Amino acid sequence: MNGAEGLLRTARDAGVEVCFANPGTTEMPLVEAFDSVGGVRTVLGLSEGVVTGAADGWARMRGAPAMTLLHLGPGFANGIANLHNARRARTPLINVVGEHASWHQAADAPLASDIDSLARPVSGWVGRTSSASAAAGEFVAARQAALRERQPATLIAASDHMWGDGGQVAEIPAAPELSAVDSQWVAELAKVVSGPGKPVLLLGSSVLDGAGLRLAARIAHAAGGAVFAERNPARIERGPGIPAVPTLPYFPEDNLAALADCTHLVLVGTEVPVSFFGYPDQPSVPVPEGTQVHALARPGEDGLQALAELADALGANDDPPATEAPTLRSPAGTLDPSAVATAIALTQPENAILVNEGVTAASAYPAVAAAAPAHTELDLTGGAIGMGIPAATGAALACPDRPVIDLQADGSGFYTVQGLWTQAREGADVTTVICRNASYRILGVELHRAGVTEPGPAASGMTSLQDPGADWVALAAGFGVPAVRATTGPELLDALRRAHGEPGPHLVEAVLP
Amino acid sequence: MNGAEGLLRTARDAGVEVCFANPGTTEMPLVEAFDSVGGVRTVLGLSEGVVTGAADGWARMRGAPAMTLLHLGPGFANGIANLHNARRARTPLINVVGEHASWHQAADAPLASDIDSLARPVSGWVGRTSSASAAAGEFVAARQAALRERQPATLIAASDHMWGDGGQVAEIPAAPELSAVDSQWVAELAKVVSGPGKPVLLLGSSVLDGAGLRLAARIAHAAGGAVFAERNPARIERGPGIPAVPTLPYFPEDNLAALADCTHLVLVGTEVPVSFFGYPDQPSVPVPEGTQVHALARPGEDGLQALAELADALGANDDPPATEAPTLRSPAGTLDPSAVATAIALTQPENAILVNEGVTAASAYPAVAAAAPAHTELDLTGGAIGMGIPAATGAALACPDRPVIDLQADGSGFYTVQGLWTQAREGADVTTVICRNASYRILGVELHRAGVTEPGPAASGMTSLQDPGADWVALAAGFGVPAVRATTGPELLDALRRAHGEPGPHLVEAVLP
Repeated sequence: MNGAEGLLRTARDAGVEVCFANPGTTEMPLVEAFDSVGGVRTVLGLSEGVVTGAADGWARMRGAPAMTLLHLGPGFANGIANLHNARRARTPLINVVGEHASWHQAADAPLASDIDSLARPVSGWVGRTSSASAAAGEFVAARQAALRERQPATLIAASDHMWGDGGQVAEIPAAPELSAVDSQWVAELAKVVSGPGKPVLLLGSSVLDGAGLRLAARIAHAAGGAVFAERNPARIERGPGIPAVPTLPYFPEDNLAALADCTHLVLVGTEVPVSFFGYPDQPSVPVPEGTQVHALARPGEDGLQALAELADALGANDDPPATEAPTLRSPAGTLDPSAVATAIALTQPENAILVNEGVTAASAYPAVAAAAPAHTELDLTGGAIGMGIPAATGAALACPDRPVIDLQADGSGFYTVQGLWTQAREGADVTTVICRNASYRILGVELHRAGVTEPGPAASGMTSLQDPGADWVALAAGFGVPAVRATTGPELLDALRRAHGEPGPHLVEAVLP
Repeated sequence: MNGAEGLLRTARDAGVEVCFANPGTTEMPLVEAFDSVGGVRTVLGLSEGVVTGAADGWARMRGAPAMTLLHLGPGFANGIANLHNARRARTPLINVVGEHASWHQAADAPLASDIDSLARPVSGWVGRTSSASAAAGEFVAARQAALRERQPATLIAASDHMWGDGGQVAEIPAAPELSAVDSQWVAELAKVVSGPGKPVLLLGSSVLDGAGLRLAARIAHAAGGAVFAERNPARIERGPGIPAVPTLPYFPEDNLAALADCTHLVLVGTEVPVSFFGYPDQPSVPVPEGTQVHALARPGEDGLQALAELADALGANDDPPATEAPTLRSPAGTLDPSAVATAIALTQPENAILVNEGVTAASAYPAVAAAAPAHTELDLTGGAIGMGIPAATGAALACPDRPVIDLQADGSGFYTVQGLWTQAREGADVTTVICRNASYRILGVELHRAGVTEPGPAASGMTSLQDPGADWVALAAGFGVPAVRATTGPELLDALRRAHGEPGPHLVEAVLP
C-alpha cells in the first residue's frame, strides 16, 4: 500500500463518497489509487472553479464534507473563488492539492509556487504531508479541521509521499459536535426578548431549516418581534408548514430601514450584518444606532438547541397565523426578472433544489418562492461570481432524486460555463435558466448609484456583454447540454416544463430585453 | 481630480496604452476614470484568466508592462494561473486590484479576503494605496518594481482612495536598466569556453531574438559547442538569417541525453535547467554530473551585451554554415500533431505570432518551424494551462498588423475558452487551431510512464474528455467566432487559408483520432 492508497482508504472509511477533481502529473498516484482502492466516485471538472463549486454544492446538500483533488498552486488558484464562497457558506471541504516531490521542491520547477500562501485565505486549516505513512493521519487532521471550523481545509500532498511505500490507514475520530449554548445565557436573552421593544431574530443558514424557522417564528410571535434570514444564505428550506422569512436587503440604507424599529437584534448562527460594499456616507454595519445586538448562538454553536430553549423560556408554543402564499399569474409577453422567477415557481417540481446566482435577478425568486412547492434554496454566499453552474452540478449529484434549477445570471454564468460539460457527462438533472440581459447589470446599478447617469464608452464597454452577445444555446450544445431560447413568458413556461419532463441537464436562455 | 483619475493619468503618462479588465463595484471609480481621463484602451475579459493571460501576451510582444484591473481577492484569484505563467515568462505586469474602502475592511464583508496572501506567490511586489493623493505614486512604485523584477506587481487600491478627492499625478522615473555583466567575468568565461571540452550555451528568452541567436551561434561555432533555448521560452524569434536552435526536452532523461557530452553549460539570461516534475530515480536538475555550470548573464542582466563581449573575446565573427530548412509535404489523410504543425507552417502568413499551448502537440511545431516564414513563438512558460487563447488575444491587440495563430490543446483551451469572446469583440486577428484529441493526453503519457498500461475507470475518466466530446465549432460560435472542423490534411489546409484570408478571429477544430 502506498501513501495515496492509505490516504484514500482512510477517506473512504471517513465517509467520503465522491471526489471532485482536475488532477495533473503530481496527482497521478492518487488517480491510480481511486482505481485500486475503489468506492469513491470521481467527478471531473474542465476547470477548477467547476471542481470547488461542485464540492460546495454537494456538501451544502449533504451536510457532510466533500473532497476535491487539485493540481499544484495554479490548479488550486483556479478554484479559490468558489472556495471563498464555500468559506462564507461555512461548508466543510477537504482539498487535497498535489505538490512536487519533497526532494524536488527546492529546485523551483516551472509549476512550483507558494501553495500555502494561496490556500490560507480560503482555508481554516492548511497542512502538508510529511511521509507516505503519515499522509492518512494528515488527511484525518484536515477532515477534523474542516468539520470543526466549518470551512475548507487544504492538505498539500507531495507526490513522493503518495507514490512511496508504507502507506497506512488512519483511524477516524468522531466528528466534532456543535458547542451547546449556555442555558443561563439563553435565560438572560429570554428576559431581553420578552422585555420592552421589538426584537428581531437574524438567522444563519444552520437554522434556516423547518425546525429552526418554526421555532424562530413562534418566538417572534410571542415577543412581538420579527425574523430575518441572513443575506445570501448557504441554504434555506421552504414549503408547507415552514414560515416564510425575508432576507436582509443588499444596500445598507435598505438594511437600516428594515431594522428601523428593531431594539434588540438577536443573532442565531450568524454574525452581525455587514454592508456588502462600503459606500460614501453609509455605515459598514447597517444596524440602527439604538439597536442592541445579542448573539444567542454564534456560528459553530448549536443554534437549534438555543432557539428551542429560548422558545421554552418564553412559552412560545404557538405558531403565528399562516401567511397566504401569493397567487402567481402566468407571465405573458416579454421577460423580466419577475417573469422568470414566476415561471420557475409555477413549473417547479416538488422537492426541487433552487441554486440562486441570479445577481440582479436573484431577489425576484424569494418574492414568489412561497407559491412554489417545497424546495431548498442555495445562494451566492461570498459574492465570488461563477458559483451557480458548479454548485447546481454538485447538488444534483448529492441528491439524484431531486431536480435542480439554477437561476443563473449570464455574466456570472460565463465564469464557469465549463460546468455544463460535467452536467452532461454525469447526467445531472439540472435545468439552468440563464437570465440573459447581456450586461453586468449590477455594475450599471452601482454606476447609477454613484451618480453616473450617462456612462462613457469605457464604462459602457466594461459593463456591457454585447458586441457580440453570446449565444447560450450554442455554448450549451458545445458542452453537450440540450438548450432552447425563450423570449416570452409562454415560451419560458413551455421550455421549463419540457426540461423538467426529461432526465438529465437542460439549459434555457431567457432573454431579458 | 480624485485618486482614480490621478492614478490613471499617471499610468497614461507612463505609457500604459491598454488595461485588460474585469471590474466590479470596488473598481467603479477607476472605471469612471477611464472615461474622464481618456487615452487608455480598456479590454474586457469574461473571466480573469482571460484578463491576465491577455496582459501577458500583450506585454511579451510589446516588451512593455501591461496593466490589469481586477476585482477584490476572488477576481484576482481567478487570474493567478496566468499571472503564474507571466512570472515564469519574466513579464512585467501592473495589476490594480480594487479593495473595500479602507474604513470598511475591518467589517469582513462577504467579498473580503487576504488579497496580499493571494498576490504574493505571483507578484514580485505587493503594495496598497494609502490615500487618494498618494495612489499615483504607489502606482509608479508598482511599475518600477514590475520593470526591475521582470514580474507582475500588484497594487491593492482601496475604493475610498480611488473615489476620494485630492488625487495627484506622479512623476515617472526612468525605467530601470538591465545590469551590465562584468567584463572581467566575460573574459574568464571566454577562457573556459575556448578551453578543452564542449561548451553548451543555454539561452533565456531575453536573448532569443535575432541578435542573440546569431551571437550564440557564432560563439558555439568558434568554440565547437552547441546552443539550446530554455524549455518553453516566453518568446523566440525565427526567420531567414536567424539560426534555429532546439529547446531543452521535457523529460529529465532526455534532458540528460541532450547534454551528455556538455562539459561547460553557459547560462545566458536563464537559470539552470530543472525537471518539469520530479520522477522516481531521476534528478531534480537534469545536468550531467561532470558538467560545470556557469552563469554568463543572470536573468535581469544584459545577456546581449555579454554575448557580444564573449563573441569578441573569442574572435567569433563567423556564422556557422546555414542549416537547410526542412521541406514540408502537405499532409494528407487523417490528422496527427505533426500534420497539424505542418499545415500551420505551410499556410502561415509572413511575420505571424505563433502562440504554442499545444501541450502534447506543442513540440511538433518547432520541428517544422524552420520551414515557416519569419515569425515569433510564445510558449507556455509556467505550465499553468489556459494561457493560449488569452495570450493570443493580447498579442493580437499588441501587434494589430501581425496575424496570430494559437496552436491550442483542447484540454487547456477549455480553461479560458471565454477568451474567444474578447477576440470577437476586439476583432483580434487570431486563428485558433484546436488540437482536439478529447483527452488530457499528457496525463495518459505520464500514467504510462508510471507503469500503468491499462488505466482503470477512475483514471480513464479523469484523463478522457469524451462522454461527451465537446463541439468546439459550437463553442466558438456561441462566443461569436466563426469556426469549422477539419478531419484531414486537405481540410485543415483549406480552413487555415480561409482563416488567414479574412480579418478577425477564426477557430479550426482539428480532429486528432
